[in-house]
Amino acid sequence: MAAAAANDDIRRRIRTIPDFPKPGVQFRDITTLLLDPQGLQLSVERMLDQIAVPVDIVAGIEARGFVFAPAIALALGAGVLLIRKDGKLPGATIAEEYALEYGTDRIAIHADACTPGANVLLVDDLIATGGTARAAVRLLRKAGATVRQAAFVIELPDLGGAEMLRGENLAVTSLVQFAGD
Amino acid sequence: MAAAAANDDIRRRIRTIPDFPKPGVQFRDITTLLLDPQGLQLSVERMLDQIAVPVDIVAGIEARGFVFAPAIALALGAGVLLIRKDGKLPGATIAEEYALEYGTDRIAIHADACTPGANVLLVDDLIATGGTARAAVRLLRKAGATVRQAAFVIELPDLGGAEMLRGENLAVTSLVQFAGD
Repeated sequence: MAAAAANDDIRRRIRTIPDFPKPGVQFRDITTLLLDPQGLQLSVERMLDQIAVPVDIVAGIEARGFVFAPAIALALGAGVLLIRKDGKLPGATIAEEYALEYGTDRIAIHADACTPGANVLLVDDLIATGGTARAAVRLLRKAGATVRQAAFVIELPDLGGAEMLRGENLAVTSLVQFAGD
Repeated sequence: MAAAAANDDIRRRIRTIPDFPKPGVQFRDITTLLLDPQGLQLSVERMLDQIAVPVDIVAGIEARGFVFAPAIALALGAGVLLIRKDGKLPGATIAEEYALEYGTDRIAIHADACTPGANVLLVDDLIATGGTARAAVRLLRKAGATVRQAAFVIELPDLGGAEMLRGENLAVTSLVQFAGD
């Protein structure tokens, strides 16, 4: 019940902005959650509570995943791995493509970022269709990482991303869910 | 001396990649620093040591500023403000333009992100020419914030950004400096 109450506190601090980035979409805006010191603290604490696997490295997806991954890594004594848009990382990279509504995009990590067998926790702010997260998991596994869990602040269950990721042999956790949009 | 030794430990963990993003540039790559749990921990601790002003909100500049701002905010009991590329924030924004080598770019914050008089600490990974950081300070001040310090991990003193920011009535701190490139 304490966890449920904390999740309600988090949910109340997330602002919904209609019709962004396009008509008909309800954008769940975490900037109001982050601006509130208690909201920030609660989010990180609750994400930590949900971690159910050993973690050597916390991987955050650009850009909002960068907000949560280091805070979680610091609490666990882990390192942070930045998963970036392709072309942003300076060293030799490996990349993975994923589908957008129209066309495709690519994310990348440094080719030497994972020691083989490293336990990597994937973190992002939100899971919708899960396309980016799946590409991230595949990329990390290609690099030799063991990836068993993906942790999010927000889940949009109607879009099926969490279910899809579970099909990739992954535990998927989130703090608040927005359904029925 | 403990601080100097810690800064040396941080410096050793930063990888230099020549000719990125273009020939002649020595890119200072913090991904190796972040992947190392001790490097991450030391960087945040040392940034905290250098804070010399009251802080209500820690503002991070997209994307690598997002890595450090929340960790600092959590330690201080402050909130986090995301300074983003223009067009990424869902609510009503105010934006500020800054010069690139060729052309201009714009960063933005939510118009309601700062309560007037809020003490905002600006955070980013690196200060080079300081164009983005100066735009960020002006934007925050336009929103009513009190901005007295900007904190960076890396400074490139030859490019004069820290000096320029000091001319904007700002304390500028960094953990490691790379000169003479």
